[in-house]
Amino acid sequence: MQDFEFYNPVRVFFGKDQISKIIPYIEPGTRIMLLYGGGSIFKNGVRDKITEVLKDFTVTEFGGVEPNPSYETCMKAVGVIKAENIGFILAAGGGSVIDAAKFIAAAALYRGADPWDILAEKVPVTAALPLASVLTLPATGSEMNKNAVISRKSTGEKLAFASQYTFPRFSVLLPEAAATLPQRQVANGVVDAFVHVLEQYLTYPVNAPLQDRQAEAVLLTLVEEGPKAYANPADYDAMANLMWSATMALNGLLSCGVPGDWSVHSIGHELTAFHGIDHARTLAIVQPGLWKALFEEKKEKLIQYGKRIWNITEGSDDEKADAAIRRTVDFFESLGIRTRLSDYNAGPETIDKIVARFESRNWLEMGDRGLTTPGVVRKALELQL
Amino acid sequence: MQDFEFYNPVRVFFGKDQISKIIPYIEPGTRIMLLYGGGSIFKNGVRDKITEVLKDFTVTEFGGVEPNPSYETCMKAVGVIKAENIGFILAAGGGSVIDAAKFIAAAALYRGADPWDILAEKVPVTAALPLASVLTLPATGSEMNKNAVISRKSTGEKLAFASQYTFPRFSVLLPEAAATLPQRQVANGVVDAFVHVLEQYLTYPVNAPLQDRQAEAVLLTLVEEGPKAYANPADYDAMANLMWSATMALNGLLSCGVPGDWSVHSIGHELTAFHGIDHARTLAIVQPGLWKALFEEKKEKLIQYGKRIWNITEGSDDEKADAAIRRTVDFFESLGIRTRLSDYNAGPETIDKIVARFESRNWLEMGDRGLTTPGVVRKALELQL
Repeated sequence: MQDFEFYNPVRVFFGKDQISKIIPYIEPGTRIMLLYGGGSIFKNGVRDKITEVLKDFTVTEFGGVEPNPSYETCMKAVGVIKAENIGFILAAGGGSVIDAAKFIAAAALYRGADPWDILAEKVPVTAALPLASVLTLPATGSEMNKNAVISRKSTGEKLAFASQYTFPRFSVLLPEAAATLPQRQVANGVVDAFVHVLEQYLTYPVNAPLQDRQAEAVLLTLVEEGPKAYANPADYDAMANLMWSATMALNGLLSCGVPGDWSVHSIGHELTAFHGIDHARTLAIVQPGLWKALFEEKKEKLIQYGKRIWNITEGSDDEKADAAIRRTVDFFESLGIRTRLSDYNAGPETIDKIVARFESRNWLEMGDRGLTTPGVVRKALELQL
Repeated sequence: MQDFEFYNPVRVFFGKDQISKIIPYIEPGTRIMLLYGGGSIFKNGVRDKITEVLKDFTVTEFGGVEPNPSYETCMKAVGVIKAENIGFILAAGGGSVIDAAKFIAAAALYRGADPWDILAEKVPVTAALPLASVLTLPATGSEMNKNAVISRKSTGEKLAFASQYTFPRFSVLLPEAAATLPQRQVANGVVDAFVHVLEQYLTYPVNAPLQDRQAEAVLLTLVEEGPKAYANPADYDAMANLMWSATMALNGLLSCGVPGDWSVHSIGHELTAFHGIDHARTLAIVQPGLWKALFEEKKEKLIQYGKRIWNITEGSDDEKADAAIRRTVDFFESLGIRTRLSDYNAGPETIDKIVARFESRNWLEMGDRGLTTPGVVRKALELQL
């Protein structure tokens, strides 16, 4: 096991009728921004419940946060926060809204010239407004971590940041509110959580058996419960199990003491930036390609993954590892998620552009052991044409 | 899955050379009490390292905390804290020292007449001094939770409390410092952690597959790594895996959304109070007896446990559940831990005294579903004579 530091102060309220529990965690008299996305919180009852619980506070609603939250929209929210002296951001919805809340919270107190530097120049965040979330969509894990990914429409960039100041103070996890989700979003959530685990698990052995089994616990639960929630988002038990799995997939525990990869995400972000493909779908495209491109380097963990998740015990080592990749692709496809670039009208030109971007960034150390070179990126994507 | 709230703000530093990382987390100028037990920190180098790191602070050393930390010793420490205006407690050692630090931290700021009421009368803690830990012995999980168990020598009582104010601010987990532990203490740690998991796992099914698998992840790792650490405490990898397993066994995650039992601990505490038997050994005695006494009620989870931890797949349901109990006893005995009352010179008179104590407390709601009545306590202990 490698040395590690772990810290996660997010308070989680999980289940039914949880929103009323938030009151002790917001200072009386604070002006609150209720941040949301496309308006689903008006349909699933969450907005009305929040409004009722916060009736003694001044609440400013700010909607329209996009599925890939944009810098441009976030900066509009920062303007409102400064104009109205808002002191607390409550994000209601899925991971995009929560990610936006984190960036807005940091940008509102940023002292430099341009908050974009937090993302592009990795300027450390030294303060942020308090924020919290009411989660209605299991997927990103943003509700219980300090990370956010923000896109800039004007340049087609999609970049991440993290700060100890952007942990949500609390997150209310509401499986019931996910009952009315479109199946497409449930499928995206299952795959997003699944690949979050793989990025922390499928690297190389470091004698960390507990972390491996914790990762496998999430994967197995997603394999079992994900399809049930996809088939019927109103199946409370399945949605609850999916939601808690997605949170546990990226709250920092699985990465304790083990190497990470994260190059599937880095490559996937470029596919979203260039083609607008849903984040989870980019992961479903890139993950099998990357495994095939790094087959020898990933083989040992692929065999373990195949055995423990898919019960693959027959054949040579190569056959077992290959079967593990195929079963993963079958799983994604069973949720209606296609895994080829051609399924999304992307082709060789897109690969050229993405590889050029990685080359221009001198991103030599991407992936576990720095394995994901621009050449590997090309190979991984060409295998998924 | 049941509704739940989860909150755990403990910052963990895990691995080698971690002690120097604590400085940013103690306010400059604070007077610190370094709390320890029998003096092992003088032999394993931890005391010298702490003293070096804290050279700019005024540090008062307070040793002699017992394996079952006593109210009497804790109150002496409270006297020193008040006399010397100490503002931070750093516990170095195992769970007993950390438990003592929690009670001392709360008692030092207690406003009522007698801090014993925190334990005996369940008076809520409303403030506590900040505390932290340097862990040298994997076992109790106290390093990453808010719980403490304190004994009163004068009355032979052993009682627990928990407060949001008694989470350690940070805990440094040092597998290397456990290299010089006696084998007996390593065995105790493995069994303590194992039963912590069982108390949260082996109840009845509530459709919480992720929590079940997370619990099983810890159990499987303890079964694999515990014997290696027991055989050779200087095996760093095995001790590291054991230490992280023991922490994860009781940091609150495994109990999210599932029922708990905890009657093995409640009964075990009485065995320690009456006979001075090591805490872990009391658990090893009581656990199999309680399973046999509640065989029908626990059967469904016993079968799952037997299959997933001990690979028991043959026989009738009764045979499978029975085999799961036997394999557990064999595991404890393989670590040199005996599981019969007679192994510890305890007999029917002890059972009478323990049952009388539970009857006098009207503890009708002990155990999952309130199953552990005084009659069940008698049966469980008689089966282990």
